[in-house]
Amino acid sequence: MDRMNRSQRLVLIMKLLSERPGELLPLSFFTERFGAAKSTISEDLALVKEALEADGSGRLRTHAGAAGGVQYWPLPSREEEHATLEELCRLLNDPGRILPGGFVYMTDLITHPHWSARIGAIMAARFIDAEPDVVLTVETKGIPLALMVARALGLPMVVARREGRVTEGPSVTLHYISGSRRIHTMTVGLRALQRGSRVLVVDDFMKAGATARAMVDVVGEMGCSVAGVGVFVATAVPEKKQVERYVSLLTLEQVDEVARTVRVVPADRMTKE
Amino acid sequence: MDRMNRSQRLVLIMKLLSERPGELLPLSFFTERFGAAKSTISEDLALVKEALEADGSGRLRTHAGAAGGVQYWPLPSREEEHATLEELCRLLNDPGRILPGGFVYMTDLITHPHWSARIGAIMAARFIDAEPDVVLTVETKGIPLALMVARALGLPMVVARREGRVTEGPSVTLHYISGSRRIHTMTVGLRALQRGSRVLVVDDFMKAGATARAMVDVVGEMGCSVAGVGVFVATAVPEKKQVERYVSLLTLEQVDEVARTVRVVPADRMTKE
Repeated sequence: MDRMNRSQRLVLIMKLLSERPGELLPLSFFTERFGAAKSTISEDLALVKEALEADGSGRLRTHAGAAGGVQYWPLPSREEEHATLEELCRLLNDPGRILPGGFVYMTDLITHPHWSARIGAIMAARFIDAEPDVVLTVETKGIPLALMVARALGLPMVVARREGRVTEGPSVTLHYISGSRRIHTMTVGLRALQRGSRVLVVDDFMKAGATARAMVDVVGEMGCSVAGVGVFVATAVPEKKQVERYVSLLTLEQVDEVARTVRVVPADRMTKE
Repeated sequence: MDRMNRSQRLVLIMKLLSERPGELLPLSFFTERFGAAKSTISEDLALVKEALEADGSGRLRTHAGAAGGVQYWPLPSREEEHATLEELCRLLNDPGRILPGGFVYMTDLITHPHWSARIGAIMAARFIDAEPDVVLTVETKGIPLALMVARALGLPMVVARREGRVTEGPSVTLHYISGSRRIHTMTVGLRALQRGSRVLVVDDFMKAGATARAMVDVVGEMGCSVAGVGVFVATAVPEKKQVERYVSLLTLEQVDEVARTVRVVPADRMTKE
């Protein structure tokens, strides 16, 4: 490869950082790639950091020393987070989304990478300082969000299954009672979750919190600890969930199947009764 | 926001492009964000394009005219693709991955965003010129790869379920016979897939191809057409699959549970018998 000039290096450094969130990249990764001196790359990285700070988005951490390098996380700016959550509320507050039983159709949003990536980055920002080392969700609808949270943090994702599969190897299984009083099964592969891991539990939706509770319990059964519980949308009622502490990005305050109204708001602006 | 200098703009333009793959971003998106003239942004974009071309990775398309703008796709360079597939084979060819029945454990790889993002980008490069407008997979293990393919192409993802759910709304359901002669059900929400869509079918693994065939069939039943079928790993045997045309990135040539050997190779280097 020809030697690159500064403009080219800045573009490609930002590209590489964006493609490898959370990874510790040594300076040699860049010097070899661009045929540039360490001092040159250090200057480039200082410019990248300056640009990110001017924009108020992303986090670049520089590690000094022999084992040093940089780590980047694509965290949103306050403005981006605010705009994303407001737009999601606007989209969700469409009566056409009301389904029988007072459910709200949101599959199109959580499965579209445009939205799941943004939601994942917002969730990542809420939990990065809790220093999780793996993201756990349960099939099926939690997966796109959990994957995008894991991506933004540079962590592996583990998917709890509803039943054991030969393709997952030996597993730990537990049973739990859902809010609708039915018995459910949850199983996590022993290969997937190492003892002692700090686990971030992620799901798309929480009502009673029985599923999140079961994930918290399976984490404990597997000798791991919970770094946090994050859900995209939680219902305002019941106020008391089966997990004590959780973060939700949006609150589903009310669905009226007859009047055809639905009200979803950012969780930090929940209507006080 | 203060006005940005060129270095800062180049960094932030590459960041924005990386975060919005496939989206058509008008020049005004950048001029407003950076308080810069259109001519300045055009020069910046020319520098970005030059850097990507020097690296041989990513695709930046410029659309001229009033409705113009740029679109970016994070496609890998030939070297990146080659290195990723070789490394995945190395990881998969570990006898410790052999499961009862000759299955190979690969859940850790396809659920880790480090790998699923790379696999997704490689798959995206294979199908971008087929111009799909939605990516379809089936729960559960196809989801991380399909989401990352969809992300790289800037398309929505649709997940076929094993049974209908109230949260998906009305759906189309079909039954099919798997390679192991069992009857399976597949259901796709009517809201999820619009008639006339060009659908890219993605899955993690193909043996007989019954699941991919069922996805192809459901696409037809819903008034859509197939833009392509892509799987991460296909078995060498049976050579004839239930779908006529598909792309696999890797080929599982052989698993021997007794001798404890497994052989996975890049699909373009399949051993000729």
